[in-house]
Amino acid sequence: MAPSVAVENLNPKVLKCEYAVRGEIVIHAQRLQQQLQTQPGSLPFDEILYCNIGNPQSLGQQPVTFFREVLALCDHPSLLEKEETKSLFSADAISRAKRILSTIPGRATGAYSHSQGIKGLRDAIAAGIALRDGFPANADDIFVTDGASPGVHMMMQLLLRDEKDGILCPIPQYPLYSASIALHGGTLIPYYLDEKTGWGLEISELKKQLEDARSKGIDVRALVVINPGNPTGQVLAEDNQCDIVRFCKNEGLVLLADEVYQENIYVDDKKFNSFKKIARSIGYGEDDLPLVSFQSVSKGYYGECGKRGGYMEITGFSASVREQVYKIASVNLCSNITGQILASLIMNPPKEGDESYAAYKAEKDGILQSLARRAKALEDAFNNLEGISCNKAEGAMYLFPQIHLPQKAIEAAKAAKKAPDAFYALRLLEATGIVVVPGSGFGQVSQLNFYIL
Amino acid sequence: MAPSVAVENLNPKVLKCEYAVRGEIVIHAQRLQQQLQTQPGSLPFDEILYCNIGNPQSLGQQPVTFFREVLALCDHPSLLEKEETKSLFSADAISRAKRILSTIPGRATGAYSHSQGIKGLRDAIAAGIALRDGFPANADDIFVTDGASPGVHMMMQLLLRDEKDGILCPIPQYPLYSASIALHGGTLIPYYLDEKTGWGLEISELKKQLEDARSKGIDVRALVVINPGNPTGQVLAEDNQCDIVRFCKNEGLVLLADEVYQENIYVDDKKFNSFKKIARSIGYGEDDLPLVSFQSVSKGYYGECGKRGGYMEITGFSASVREQVYKIASVNLCSNITGQILASLIMNPPKEGDESYAAYKAEKDGILQSLARRAKALEDAFNNLEGISCNKAEGAMYLFPQIHLPQKAIEAAKAAKKAPDAFYALRLLEATGIVVVPGSGFGQVSQLNFYIL
Repeated sequence: MAPSVAVENLNPKVLKCEYAVRGEIVIHAQRLQQQLQTQPGSLPFDEILYCNIGNPQSLGQQPVTFFREVLALCDHPSLLEKEETKSLFSADAISRAKRILSTIPGRATGAYSHSQGIKGLRDAIAAGIALRDGFPANADDIFVTDGASPGVHMMMQLLLRDEKDGILCPIPQYPLYSASIALHGGTLIPYYLDEKTGWGLEISELKKQLEDARSKGIDVRALVVINPGNPTGQVLAEDNQCDIVRFCKNEGLVLLADEVYQENIYVDDKKFNSFKKIARSIGYGEDDLPLVSFQSVSKGYYGECGKRGGYMEITGFSASVREQVYKIASVNLCSNITGQILASLIMNPPKEGDESYAAYKAEKDGILQSLARRAKALEDAFNNLEGISCNKAEGAMYLFPQIHLPQKAIEAAKAAKKAPDAFYALRLLEATGIVVVPGSGFGQVSQLNFYIL
Repeated sequence: MAPSVAVENLNPKVLKCEYAVRGEIVIHAQRLQQQLQTQPGSLPFDEILYCNIGNPQSLGQQPVTFFREVLALCDHPSLLEKEETKSLFSADAISRAKRILSTIPGRATGAYSHSQGIKGLRDAIAAGIALRDGFPANADDIFVTDGASPGVHMMMQLLLRDEKDGILCPIPQYPLYSASIALHGGTLIPYYLDEKTGWGLEISELKKQLEDARSKGIDVRALVVINPGNPTGQVLAEDNQCDIVRFCKNEGLVLLADEVYQENIYVDDKKFNSFKKIARSIGYGEDDLPLVSFQSVSKGYYGECGKRGGYMEITGFSASVREQVYKIASVNLCSNITGQILASLIMNPPKEGDESYAAYKAEKDGILQSLARRAKALEDAFNNLEGISCNKAEGAMYLFPQIHLPQKAIEAAKAAKKAPDAFYALRLLEATGIVVVPGSGFGQVSQLNFYIL
């Protein structure tokens, strides 16, 4: 018989899907890493430096002590009965762990929870959102997820019926969106951010792309906005956000707001505003706008990527649509409890007066200052290099410099059947061990941009 | 404008998907639980007893101490530098945590890992499989996942192109399979287990259903076998397994082996054999059979459902197909590290001579004996009740008794527009607070079976 499973008979949506931040360059880097282990000294560098993805703890960032104290106590609650624990853990970590355990039915951190997440933890997350925004938030609107990615997949799965359904996405975009849209069989409708104006998002561009898609018979279901931007690092101005919210209401689009970099802002003249706050500020209620906000424990100053925690806050959906979201969530039973606890902690960190506050604040400020310092240092370094230009990193964790390659390099890339930026990234890896992602992986028009931590 | 998102314009695959173990009865139970909190004494019972799903820690089962010690130390590694830790944790938990941390690049339990899972942990899992089976296992074949469910989804996503692709599934089946096949747009091809022969799996039945499906133009891609059975509790005999393996090879089917209950066997005359062991025992190598084995930290004696750990071991796929599996895994970056560590621990628990061994063994034996005792007590109780009959629970965590409802009850169900068993389950909940799942949720032909822990 012919082999029962071959690339030719797999789901074509899977074949079509691309995910550049874990793609060809990273797979090649993993091979080189193995080579370094088996044949030390065989390459012009001693280690691989993974700058392909925001993964700060892999580059030495330490986790926030308070968060880890609470997690350890919740993982092994019998510690709470031991005298020695008082000298090993801060008093507020102990009381926080006790409070969290008291909200978990049976104190069972090893039980499946409600498919939206443990109610007490969702209450804490909602309280954190309300404090951040100055508008009420409701635990019933929170779906706790294993990082932000599964939430994005759930929304794509819900909204996309076939290739005639479209999702407006920024270009350059974080490739999770293109990958998820491909896997769920919809169509990505690009809108282009303008590199010349610091990656500006123009409503006229949104309108143009929306009308163009509609004229081709595409039913545009939603608009994805990433703020602060990934990979571009821009922070949207409040006016711009108001216009986006109005645009979504007027055009009947779901607003999918990727707000995972909400703590990562490095310039004084910008601040983070959630889209829900903006919508409520201009008087829009639940009925005006279906809105989903994604948050993750992986980013911010916490950087707890490996814990896979996060949530989405869903407002403006009817009860019957909400039931369908719940059903999709329930097919995976629940997200991991450690990640759920962490999501509640990042939305309710220690407060002034708590024993851990000073240490927590020092750790948080240290991490954010270091990220800001490194962003600035890299930005300056890039702009001082010949043939490279780079916008200001206002937020998020990345720089996205433009590399102006000489014609000969472009021809060499063509000969190797690679995009010029992919060719450059491969050569950079082989010469230095530094792993970056070519801008073409983000759909960038000029194909000459890079992603670097 | 019409509302932009309504049930009528959602993905029809989502609407079609059903997931009985978290369906109508459970949602009603959650409402009653809230009522008990706000109006104590308003119902004929004081608490809700969730027997809808194997979730042992929610019913008071304690986690295995050694596992939780290691998790706590890995969550907060600075404990390893403190003197007090030696009196709070067992010596082998400390050394195991140190060993695990040494295999994680940068000791970073908060970093995204390789998308298949941390290499050192996969080595440990592979070593555990090799010891269990007596045949080699390879870390490159292991994909660590957030529980078994995401692994099942990944395989369905890979194999199913459209409704002309079919997957053979046992009926009664665990509804994850029907839900996942519906979400990915394929067709479930049922094969019926025979209640009269203790839920026997007949090759003639597989053949009949396969041929029937093929005659309708269905391309049958894979066979799902759940062993020990869920919800039926039977343990397959070795001969039967050999025949199943031969059947898959001869018919060109992928064998999807759900082996999450591998530690849950309650009768002396049966033992668990992995399908990989069976295949290798009869001389089948990689090229003979594409085989996926699913394992989870949620079941067994560990019962760590909330930690969302598990893995799939994939053998017999070509390198190019494997790349596609890796790509799907990479779109979610990685599974949670706590679950990854736990998956390595359940496949490598303490061994004789380790400080924790005696305590570990006592905990493990206590849990398994208690499960066996309860299965037997329930089985006897059911068989002594009028109108109920129940097969022996050889393994897994469930009983699946048949309730012979009187004609009047069936008519009352019809009047209420419910399946008779769903009607009974709802009345049982309202009278006692006990949550079970009607057999119809598992596709059972007679529609009169129940799932109970």
